[in-house]
Amino acid sequence: MGKSAAVGKKRFAMVKRRHKETLSEAVEKNLADEKMVRLCKFVASTKNFFTSSGCAGRILLIQLPKGESKREASFHRRWHRRISFEEAKKALQEETKGELWMKMEPFILHIGSNTLGKARKILAVMSRAGVKRGGIIVAKEGKFLVELQGTQEMSVPLKQLDKILVQDDYLRWLVEKANSKLQRNYRMLERFEKECRQALK
Amino acid sequence: MGKSAAVGKKRFAMVKRRHKETLSEAVEKNLADEKMVRLCKFVASTKNFFTSSGCAGRILLIQLPKGESKREASFHRRWHRRISFEEAKKALQEETKGELWMKMEPFILHIGSNTLGKARKILAVMSRAGVKRGGIIVAKEGKFLVELQGTQEMSVPLKQLDKILVQDDYLRWLVEKANSKLQRNYRMLERFEKECRQALK
Repeated sequence: MGKSAAVGKKRFAMVKRRHKETLSEAVEKNLADEKMVRLCKFVASTKNFFTSSGCAGRILLIQLPKGESKREASFHRRWHRRISFEEAKKALQEETKGELWMKMEPFILHIGSNTLGKARKILAVMSRAGVKRGGIIVAKEGKFLVELQGTQEMSVPLKQLDKILVQDDYLRWLVEKANSKLQRNYRMLERFEKECRQALK
Repeated sequence: MGKSAAVGKKRFAMVKRRHKETLSEAVEKNLADEKMVRLCKFVASTKNFFTSSGCAGRILLIQLPKGESKREASFHRRWHRRISFEEAKKALQEETKGELWMKMEPFILHIGSNTLGKARKILAVMSRAGVKRGGIIVAKEGKFLVELQGTQEMSVPLKQLDKILVQDDYLRWLVEKANSKLQRNYRMLERFEKECRQALK
């Protein structure tokens, strides 16, 4: 084994162990995104792959104090589940800063492996599951990291300063839409998990 | 040179030539996205890189005949520039099918190279330019393809069947927001081009 291959092997073992521990801790403390845990546990159980951060998808009310810049953005609400019109409306009526947007964000996940060939395998699994967004974002000896994301999304301004920009009927419609997009997003994630279980070892 | 390296070299030469020709044709026929052309021409002039498809960013009115499924989606309007409230309103009043959404989509671009090392160089350029979305989506001998995308976006439902869901005030606000997001998006693309010119040869 060459020197760089040895370094790579060592790096992979370390990274895989560390992420497995982080996952266990997150599960114990109930910090992990429930719908993501099953997939992450499976990946952690394989010999050649690990997951780092992940989110199964969510509905947000996000504050943008200075318009569309995300730099100072903060969450006014963050739900990892379906929501009701009433809770959206209530949150909207509370005091917020700058612009307030409703966002439905798709799942995002990072899967790592130790070789380029295995990273390509993840790309192939994505393709079979119909996951179109993502690619290899880190490519070094012993650490190849694939980022992948769903594509169900919604991004709608609701409020500027104290002024609510949308009417109740429209908000009700938005909430339903965000909920159904979240469902679709979960289905895509399940499909991806199924393909992972067949292809990754 | 090993057999697979020779195959890779040949593949890269072919792919690079083909994409250069496609770009020239698109420029001649005025099909290419103006704001993207300068960057693509530069990349085509390098020894080791090529671009395939690209879009500098756009504002869409998109019809979704069956709700959120994109399968049968069609463009009701597609602008590669700032738009006015009047043209958005006019388009909204025309007959459309299913749901109609306003979307601001960020730039998207594919840059190819012949080795993993050079694909990593593109990732490094992205990182320096602050482009956060994208990665290597094809990784084979002689053809490494990086997909990259801006992150300015907006996705707002406007109409369901014949029913316009939003009021004029809100639509006016949306149009302004879409325009300013498009500007931000162009600036990011320019920053990326600048970094490319420094790093890619």
